[in-house]
Parts: sequence; C-alpha cells; structure tokens
Amino acid sequence: MESPDLLRSCAVQETRLDTARIRAARRMIDPVFLDTPLYRCEALEPGLGCAVSIKLETANPVRSFKARGTEVVASRLVGNGPRAVVCASAGNLGQALAWSGRRRGLDVTVVASRFAPAAKLDRIRALDARLELVDGDFDMARERAAAIARHDGIRLVEDSLDIETCEGAATIGLELVDAAPPFDAVLIALGGGALATGIGHVLKESAPGAEVICVQPLGAPAMTHSWHRRRVVTTDSTDTIADGVAGRRPIPAVLDDLLLVADDAVLVKEASIIAGMRMLLDHAGLVVEPSAALGVAAVLEDRDRFAGRHVVTIVCGGNVDADAYHRWVGLTGR
Amino acid sequence: MESPDLLRSCAVQETRLDTARIRAARRMIDPVFLDTPLYRCEALEPGLGCAVSIKLETANPVRSFKARGTEVVASRLVGNGPRAVVCASAGNLGQALAWSGRRRGLDVTVVASRFAPAAKLDRIRALDARLELVDGDFDMARERAAAIARHDGIRLVEDSLDIETCEGAATIGLELVDAAPPFDAVLIALGGGALATGIGHVLKESAPGAEVICVQPLGAPAMTHSWHRRRVVTTDSTDTIADGVAGRRPIPAVLDDLLLVADDAVLVKEASIIAGMRMLLDHAGLVVEPSAALGVAAVLEDRDRFAGRHVVTIVCGGNVDADAYHRWVGLTGR
Repeated sequence: MESPDLLRSCAVQETRLDTARIRAARRMIDPVFLDTPLYRCEALEPGLGCAVSIKLETANPVRSFKARGTEVVASRLVGNGPRAVVCASAGNLGQALAWSGRRRGLDVTVVASRFAPAAKLDRIRALDARLELVDGDFDMARERAAAIARHDGIRLVEDSLDIETCEGAATIGLELVDAAPPFDAVLIALGGGALATGIGHVLKESAPGAEVICVQPLGAPAMTHSWHRRRVVTTDSTDTIADGVAGRRPIPAVLDDLLLVADDAVLVKEASIIAGMRMLLDHAGLVVEPSAALGVAAVLEDRDRFAGRHVVTIVCGGNVDADAYHRWVGLTGR
Repeated sequence: MESPDLLRSCAVQETRLDTARIRAARRMIDPVFLDTPLYRCEALEPGLGCAVSIKLETANPVRSFKARGTEVVASRLVGNGPRAVVCASAGNLGQALAWSGRRRGLDVTVVASRFAPAAKLDRIRALDARLELVDGDFDMARERAAAIARHDGIRLVEDSLDIETCEGAATIGLELVDAAPPFDAVLIALGGGALATGIGHVLKESAPGAEVICVQPLGAPAMTHSWHRRRVVTTDSTDTIADGVAGRRPIPAVLDDLLLVADDAVLVKEASIIAGMRMLLDHAGLVVEPSAALGVAAVLEDRDRFAGRHVVTIVCGGNVDADAYHRWVGLTGR
C-alpha cells in the first residue's frame, strides 16, 4: 500500500486538467473549430533551418483558437445556470465568447481595453455582444469584468483560470498527438497560459518526447519570469505589439500547471515577432496577429537550438488591424 | 424494357465522373489535403450583401487544391506502369504533382510557361521536379509536355482531361454536401474545368438545390464562351492576372461534362478580381492568388443575384509572387 506522503506527492504532480474531460470537452465544440490544418511548410524552412509544421487556428469564424474554449464554456452554461456571462478579453476571447453565446441565446458582455485592435472590437460588436471599454490594459479589464459579474450576479469567464478555457485549448493537443510523423518540439504563444497548459498537459501525457516551449514577448514577460522563478512575478506595464498575450498578472493556479507541463519559456524581441509575421506572410501566405508569430520568432532568435529538428508552431490567431499590420510587415513603401 | 434510344439518351446525360470512384479516390489522398476548412466569414458579408462561406484549399503543403488530384494520379501510377510522369502546368498542378511524386519515388517533369509566377516555379524546383520552361503560354506548355511524353514514352498527366484530376477535385464536392447548413450556390474558378466538373458532378447528384456557378476572367473566356455556345471556342490569347485559369483551348470531353453540371458560367473584370483579393485580405485575413478571388469577384459584379442567399466560394490557391500581390492589392503607397 502506498503511503499518504507518496500519494500526496503524485497529486502535486498533476495539473488541473484531465484527458477524459478534455475528450468530453471536444464533443461540445462546434466542428468548425476542430481538426484544423496541420501541415509542413517547406517554404519557411530555408529561413528557419529546421523542419516546420503549422497548426493553423485562424481559418474559422472567429479567426483564433479561443472558440474551442468558449464553446465548452457556453455548452456547459446552457441549461445549467445563468444565461448571462461576462469576460475580460484582449479581443479574441471576447469575439469567441460572443460567437458561442449568440448561437445559444446567451447574453454576453465583453470588457476590453480601449487600446485593443479595432478589428477585434468591431467583430465583438458585430457578434451582438455588449462591449465595455476600459481606459487601461487587459488586467484592468479583468478587474472591471469581475466587478460586473459581482454586481450583476452573472457568470464571470476567466481566461486560463476557468478550466473550460484550458480544456478547449487542450483539444489542439489531442490533434497534435494524433499526427504523424511525430515532432520534436511545439512552440506555443504564452499569455494567460490556457493554450500552453492545455496543449502541454496532453503532450506530456501522450507524447512526452515532444518539447513544450512557451514563447512570450520581452515586452510582456510576467508569466515567463514567473515560470523561471517558480513563483508569480507581476510587472507594472507591458510594451509589445503582441496584444493577445500582454498580461501583467499571472494567475497562480495556471502557473502551477505550467510548471508541470512546460519544458521551457523564452522571451523574444519585437523585431523578431515582426520578422516572423513577415515570413509567415511571404513564405506561408498567412496573415497572422503578432501573438501567432511568437513561435517563428523563437526559432529566429535561437536557430542552433532547433537546427535539424521538426517543430510545430501554433498559429493561434489572425485578427489584426489592417493598417497596423501593413506597417509592421513593411508593405508600405516597398 | 427500356428502348435503346432511351438508354442512349440517359447515358448522354452522364458525366465521365462516378461518385463511387470519387469516394475511392478520396482514400488515395494524403489526409493533409482533405477535410479542409469550410466556414462562414461574416466579416466579408456587409461588403458582399449575402451570406458567405469559404472553402479553404490553401492551408496545405502546396497551397492549392491540386494535390487532391495528383495524389490520385500518383497513387494509381505506383506499382502500375511507368514511374516517370510529365505534366504541363500553370504552376499549381506542377507543384502538386512534384509533391505527390517525390514521396512515392516518381520521376516528375513539369512544363510551364516562363511567364508563370516565380513563386510557383521556385516551389516546383524545390520539390525536386525537373522543370522545363517554354517561351509561351500554358497551352504551349501543354503541347511541349505531350511531345515529351511521346518521345520519352512516359505518362502524360493532362489536367481536367485525366479523370483522376477531376476525381481529386470532386472530393471537395463530397465535403461540401456533408456540410450543414446547406447553401444556395457555389462559386468555382473555371480554368481547364476539373474543379468545376468535379465539384459540379457531386453537387448535381447529392445537393441538386445548390446552384453551380463557374467564374472566369473576361481576359481568358474560352471555356465560358464554349459553355454558352455548347461547342468548343478557342481564343488566340489571354490577358488576365489570374494565371491559374488562363487557358485558350478547352478540352471537348471536359466541356461536355461541364455542360451537364454547371448552372451558369460568368466572366468578371480584372478590377473585380483585384477587389476580391483585397477583400479576402482585409476581411478574411487570406492571401489568395487571383484565381481564388474569382468567386468574390462574381458576387461584386452581380450583388442583386446573390442578395440574401448563402454562397460558398472555393478559395482554390494561394501561390502568388509577393511583389505582384502587393502591387495588386495596393499595399504599397498606402
């Protein structure tokens, strides 16, 4: 019989996620968001020095992976509690929750920074959600959303903390481990952590040979610093074009999960993110938002690490303001 | 007992395609090319005045639908005849045949116009095919490919004439008829005709309520003129940026099939093709080649026809020269 101490020690090694629950979550997600393209992109490879596969999460009605999670949230809400929800969002979660809520008759409120990309805010409005803007950043939107939830007594959806958002993202992991041939590393944009902990959980369980590498901008390093120091580290501000991952206050429970499933967390420069966006445009024909170029940026900054290996990069979102995009990738004035 | 005349009359009403064979063809195709994204793109809808779904054929290793056909060609060749093949190509078929041939150890030769987009020619070379350029257009490349096949005694792959190329394209039709909700019309780029006859055959058999509309540039109207006059009409030249559909000499057998499955064939202006490319970039985040914007162009030119209906447009390819693309969509100088 195992000792209580040993049992406790094993329990500590488990994330909040559970693969059976992730498989159940998958069945709640509209198929339009599942089984997304996963393909080698050889045109990128001379520039990156390694084999590169793309997992494309932008070819769907909300142009990001976030609806995998909001489909689970909304499915579980229907017939099971309040029909009103509020979330804070950098833009993509709000759009996804608005999409998932609209088709189920939920009353969706999204709180976002007024500095979020207009393209994201416009889509949230177009999907019939109530949009409230705060005169601050994403973490201020989080505070405001929580206040609304308390005041109105409605469901607060907290990205990365709410297990549904992690389970939804984790369904990407299920699709990766089914892929052949196997790959050596997966590069995951790191923001709140749902994407990294979700995919990481599945990979560590089912494809432990694959290295799980989180990538964050140098200008928004809170979660990466937290992972390296094994405790929550906050920052006072962020300074990055990668609006989708620009958080200052990591969530402790998410960091705990990330410590169990990530093999590394690296920071990349803005110039590398832009170079990654340009490479994805010119060599893969993909318009991506900055957060979705973090994986390519990580390879560009450390070619030796990846030389000769096969990496998968999750192209997690494609919602950009056209003007900003054109400015970043240097199309004007060419 | 039916009279011989009636039997003959029924036989005349059948295309060269057969749905059981199309289903068998599907099993020969690498899954990376199958079950491509099909999704509503609401951001396009205010500008087009109708519900729009995209069938996206660019998120794969060759960035076009053509590998569906070359996978069938190459699969049937292996262990069954010569291991050398030659094709003429505007660029996408050659790239796809090179991809399908390389992984099966086939010896692939592609004949193309030296005026074809450099991006397409570069990818053909990168995939280890032998590339021969002719100092003329696609139809001159067809003649040269046929001459090579005769001289070397190797298999000539003729796009749209060879039934495998139509069966491969037809697998898109299988995926469309499985989709819910049903749609009212499908907009298909018309070049040699494999895509239109393939998808059209499946739709007419399994979703006869959907209108099959072929779209060709005014600058390369041979097949459209042929369809309207019910006989082959050739042209002396072409003048369009839509290099993927710029043929002058329709193939009689393909026209016969097209007459049975297409509800209409329309011609669009170059300016509409460019406007379509820009809309797909700005509102769908998709970099597409001109041929892939023909469907959007057709809606732009005849909004009343599509108002309030649900159309699917096949985004059939994304191989463009970056410089030309940027010039077309007007990114420089914004």
